[in-house]
This record gives sequence, structure tokens and C-alpha cells, in this order.
Amino acid sequence: MPRLRWHLGCDAPKYLWGFLMAASSDIDFMRLALNLAEKGRGKTSPNPMVGAVVVSGGKIVGRGYHRAAGTDHAELSAIRKAAGRSRGATMYVNLEPCCHTGRTGPCTEAITDAGISRVVVAAKDPNPLVNGKGVRALRKAGIRVELGILRKEARLLNDAYMGYHENKRPFVTLKLAQTLDGRIATLSGESKYISSAQSLTYTHLLRAEADAVIVGLGTVRADNPTLTVRRVRGNSPYRIVVTASANLPPQAAMLKNNPDQRTIIATTESSAASRIKSRPRRNLIYWSLKKASGGLIDLGDLLDKADDFGLHSLLVEGGGRLATSFLKAGLVDKLVIVTAPVIVGRGIDAVGELNIRRLSQALTFQNCRTFASGPDTVFVGYPRKGA
Amino acid sequence: MPRLRWHLGCDAPKYLWGFLMAASSDIDFMRLALNLAEKGRGKTSPNPMVGAVVVSGGKIVGRGYHRAAGTDHAELSAIRKAAGRSRGATMYVNLEPCCHTGRTGPCTEAITDAGISRVVVAAKDPNPLVNGKGVRALRKAGIRVELGILRKEARLLNDAYMGYHENKRPFVTLKLAQTLDGRIATLSGESKYISSAQSLTYTHLLRAEADAVIVGLGTVRADNPTLTVRRVRGNSPYRIVVTASANLPPQAAMLKNNPDQRTIIATTESSAASRIKSRPRRNLIYWSLKKASGGLIDLGDLLDKADDFGLHSLLVEGGGRLATSFLKAGLVDKLVIVTAPVIVGRGIDAVGELNIRRLSQALTFQNCRTFASGPDTVFVGYPRKGA
Repeated sequence: MPRLRWHLGCDAPKYLWGFLMAASSDIDFMRLALNLAEKGRGKTSPNPMVGAVVVSGGKIVGRGYHRAAGTDHAELSAIRKAAGRSRGATMYVNLEPCCHTGRTGPCTEAITDAGISRVVVAAKDPNPLVNGKGVRALRKAGIRVELGILRKEARLLNDAYMGYHENKRPFVTLKLAQTLDGRIATLSGESKYISSAQSLTYTHLLRAEADAVIVGLGTVRADNPTLTVRRVRGNSPYRIVVTASANLPPQAAMLKNNPDQRTIIATTESSAASRIKSRPRRNLIYWSLKKASGGLIDLGDLLDKADDFGLHSLLVEGGGRLATSFLKAGLVDKLVIVTAPVIVGRGIDAVGELNIRRLSQALTFQNCRTFASGPDTVFVGYPRKGA
Repeated sequence: MPRLRWHLGCDAPKYLWGFLMAASSDIDFMRLALNLAEKGRGKTSPNPMVGAVVVSGGKIVGRGYHRAAGTDHAELSAIRKAAGRSRGATMYVNLEPCCHTGRTGPCTEAITDAGISRVVVAAKDPNPLVNGKGVRALRKAGIRVELGILRKEARLLNDAYMGYHENKRPFVTLKLAQTLDGRIATLSGESKYISSAQSLTYTHLLRAEADAVIVGLGTVRADNPTLTVRRVRGNSPYRIVVTASANLPPQAAMLKNNPDQRTIIATTESSAASRIKSRPRRNLIYWSLKKASGGLIDLGDLLDKADDFGLHSLLVEGGGRLATSFLKAGLVDKLVIVTAPVIVGRGIDAVGELNIRRLSQALTFQNCRTFASGPDTVFVGYPRKGA
């Protein structure tokens, strides 16, 4: 909420004036709800990030956000803070309130019971359990509902949650760390660490947001990553290694450090069978997947399996071959490129052959944003479909 | 000057308060001088961009900037605006005032005659005609001189001018327009236009700032560029085509549109001689250069020739082979990469083989900045020397 922040950043008379101006604006309250929601980043899966603000007589009387799955929803939390002051008030919430009983009761009932008279919602919840039913329930109870304020921002905030329910398959984020000239490693295979410490922290945040991280066997061999979340608070995701051979190096860090069975070997049917037969490892999960042409596993089948397993958001961390396969299959929903200010010349490419020969066939992106991460630049974009 | 702008952007009481606060600060006045200097971008070569502010009793009484070579220097212009109010005043100027008579008289004399009592200078002028003599002349006249406020910003503003005088050779800017995955063209050779209209305008600004634009013969064949300045105000630079064979396609746009003899064919000694003998073209300039190993011309010799010709700043616009040669030779002083939010996969690389195998050998950059240009992202950085 840059506008609100700008107001609050000034001196005293300005502060009051700015505060009153902001108080009059639905957009500013919704920005506040979005900022509250953001606090749950990396901790709410499989739930979305939600923030709620209760406003009465132009004053904020309650605010709340969803801290983690299993805890209070944002709406309930904000109503509790408002205590008796929610009667006749307006609630701002970035996602349609739920109308079903999950680990907590339906928010629509809590809103109705609190006597709130108007609810401003940024985006509909595409989850089939809600999907308009929340708005209908509120309206049926005589509450005025306004939908669509800062809708785009709300959809981008919960991109993976929205994508999962709309595409009915796990949401795939492809993350690449590369040089200015588009290499993820030198020709000798050195890639650790092209990007900065700040970008590593950002990567750990992306991991905390994902249900699983996917890498190819080559990346395990070259970098021996643990793929855990260490530099930020959040749960470590499942680790999926894509390999046609199922031959993980026995000294791989993610095998040694796997007491919670969070490493999945995604391999072809025959490899998995022979592997499990010959040398089963009790702390590994094997997925038998269809083989695609070219020897790699069928990525569509991988996503189906991940979905069945309850994984809604996947982070592809490399290497180049896996990244290229996901791009070629049209299965990337979000692209994150961390570019370090270095040049290596000929090296290992971030992206390989996509059979694109004309610029008109190039993969294009929308809702792009770019920001600094220490010395690096981060690009985030969403592939346009049907390009 | 984000600080000053922020002050001025607020409401009326804030404006006054902010203005007075700014008025008390040397840094803010120097920022203003830098912003004034910036107005001359693309029009002052071979002179630097200079802005000057005269402040008396905390109030700005005169401001000026250097509009173009041959016109008034910034200092003189600011003193004229101040009229009688410069006696006892302070002058802020981003570059050391000159003390020699060129197309205009020495600024140090004008400052002394105007009765200015204090001069705040951001950076010394490395031009051997000045290089500390300006500061000494002012001090000798009893004027208090302070040096070094916003020095870094002032040096970056006039990077090419500073670089030319410090390296004693033309300043080389390498500009690449590439995809997210580091390609300047598809495999079929299509590169026009990877980047956006806004970035094309930015490229024309870079051209206006340069004394000459350099391309390889391959780029002439593939893109048939005119390499003129059209989208911004400014002079079109000389166009240098680097070619071992001197065989420019007769239909090349830059041959047809060359009444002012601004196209230079930089080729090897034997090629130039035979070319001029067999089919001289009166509107072309031929440079006979040493041959480097690998068939290309010797780029060091090219820079010497350009220096002799009076070209102080060169813009290398491609293609990849020429870009790689300049990087490999360590002759790039500034790198500009325009990245369009598209991916093409395998294609023509922006940068080729640099014989770098370890990340510790990678080319690194300092004073980097990144900004948006329409949908594209522009990276600007300065190679660290001796890496």
C-alpha cells in the first residue's frame, strides 16, 4: 500500500490529513487487507493468504490475517479484534469469504453474526467449495457485497492458489538463476552460487511457498542441494528428483537428511520397479511415471501424480534440461528469473531448444515485474497461454 | 533529485517547509545542478554535461546548464540569470569549472568577476586542459572551493567524458537487446525487434550521446539498419561497419542515406586498398586497420583510429560476434543490456566464447542499475577492471 505508507511517512499535520483521506477510500482499506494477507506468505498452504479489515464510522476497528492452515481465518480474526464494534461496519477482505466448514467454521456465518452490513471483496475464490457461494450466502443474509476492488492485485497475491483451482492441476513456478548472458553454469558446470546471498534468501521464500521443489538428476549430481528452507521461516517442501534411471548418488544431501520421507524419486515405471526390488530405501518415495519421447518422464503424468499426492504448488529449480522440458510442454505457470550482474560467455544455457524459429512464436509473459535482490535483478512473469 | 522532488510534490505548507529544508542543504542544490546538467544529454559532445546553480542567502538566484558545444557554459549561464545577485553567493556545479579559453572564455574568470565567494564542485575535470587547474585558479582568487559532494553521481553522469580523458582512448559502450534467455536473435536470424518501442527510443538516446555507432557486417546484412537518431533530438553519430572483407551490400540503408559522409568502413589494410582501387565510393570513409588473429580487425587499432578521428565515445550495437570480441579484448567500458520479456530457447547468443570456465573468472560489473523501459528491463553496469 504505497499510497497509505506515503501518507503515514510524512510529518504530523500531514499524517492526520493523509490518514483521513485514506480512511475515505475503499482502495486504501483493501490495500491494507492485501498487506495483512501477505504476512502469511509461505505459511498458509493449502489455504490462500487472506487479510481482513473491519471499518466502522471511517475508523479501523479490527484487522486480521490467516496465519497458517488450521488457524483462524482472517475474517474471524478481524471480527474478534473489532469486538462489539462490528455492528453496521464494513469488512474489506481480499478473497471471497468461505461458506463451508473446514478446520474452522464458515466465515459467512461469522460475518452475518457480527452484524457487518457491507463486505468489500477483491476476488472470487475459485475453490469449488466456495466459487461464488460465499458471496451468495452473504447477500442472502441481507449484507451488501461489492466485488472486484483490486481484483488483479488479489489474484496475483494468491497466484498459485488461484491457478491450482482454475487449471485443476498443480501450479508450476519455474525459477532460474542465471548470468546476464543467460547461463546457469560455466561450461565446467560451476553454478554455485551465481546469484547473491539475498537472492538465496528469496529462493528459500519461494521454497517455503511451494508444496514441492523439483530438480533434475543432473542438478543433484552437480550441486548436491538440500532444497530445504533455512534462510526464512516456513516449512520445507517435498523434494522431487526427476530421473529416468532412479540412480540417485548415495551421498546426496537430500538422502542423508531425509528422516521425514520428504524426498520423492519421480522416475519411469520400469526404473522404479527394478529399483524398489533391488535396493529399496525406506525413507524414499518412488513414483512410477509414464515415459515421454526423448527418454524423460512424462511431465503431465508427474503433475497428475503430484495432484493426487496433495501437492498444489511446485517449484522447478533446474537444471536447464528440466526447465526447457517444462517450458516446451507449456506447463510453466509462473517464471522467476534471478539475474546476477556477471557474464561468462559460452556456458550451460538456462533454456535450450524450444523449436522456436520466428520471434512471433516466442514465449511471451504478462503481469511482469522486476525488482532488485541485492546486486541481482529478479524478473517475475506469467506466460501468456495459447501463444 | 528524489528528495527535492518529494518535497515539491506535497501540498502548500509542506511545499514551503520542504523548500526551506532543501535550501539549507548543499546536497540538494548539487542534485539540482546534476538535474540541470542532464538536460544537455546527447547534445554536448565533445563537451561534458554541466549544470550550475547560484544560491544567495539560501535562495536560488540563478541556474543554468550547458546546452551544446559552442554555447555558453553552465556557470556563465547561471551567473547571467543571477544578474547582480551573485556577489557573495555560492555556486554549485557538477564539474570543475574550466580555466582555459575554448569556444567560450574561462569560467573561473566569470565566477571571480561575478563576485561569487564559494564554489561547491562535485567532481574534478580529468581533461588535461583543466584537471585541477580550475580549482587552483578559483582558490588563488580567494574563493572558497569545496570538492567531492555527489562526486560519484557526477562521475556517472559524464561517464563517457570522464572515461575518455582518464583512459586516453574512446569510451566504449556495448549495448545488447536480448531475450530473457540471452538471445539476440532466433536461429533463423530474426532480431528486429526483440525489444519494445520505448527501448528503441532509449537506443536512439544512446546513439545521440555517442560520437559513433559500431556494428559488424553481419548486423548490416541481417537487419539493414540506418543507425541514425530519429526518435529523440540529437545528432546522428558516425556509423562504423567492422568488416574483414569491406563488402558492404550495395543496397545497405546506411550507404543510400549517406550524403554527409558519416559511414566509415573499418577493414583490414589489404581489403581497404583493393576496395578503394576497384570501386571507390566518394561518400564512404575507409579505415585500414591491423588484422587480429581470427580474421577480425584489431579492435585496439580501431580505437586508436577513432581517437585520431576525434571520436570520443563509441556505441557498439552488435552483433554477437563483435560484442564478444570487445568483451574478450577488455575494451568495454559500459554495458547496457535491454532485456525483453520473451523466451525463444536455442538461438543466436548475445555473448559467445570468452574462455571463462570458472565463476571466479566471470566478468563482473559495478555501479549497476536496472530500470524499466516499457515492458523491457534495462541493465547498466561498468566492468570491473583487472578481473
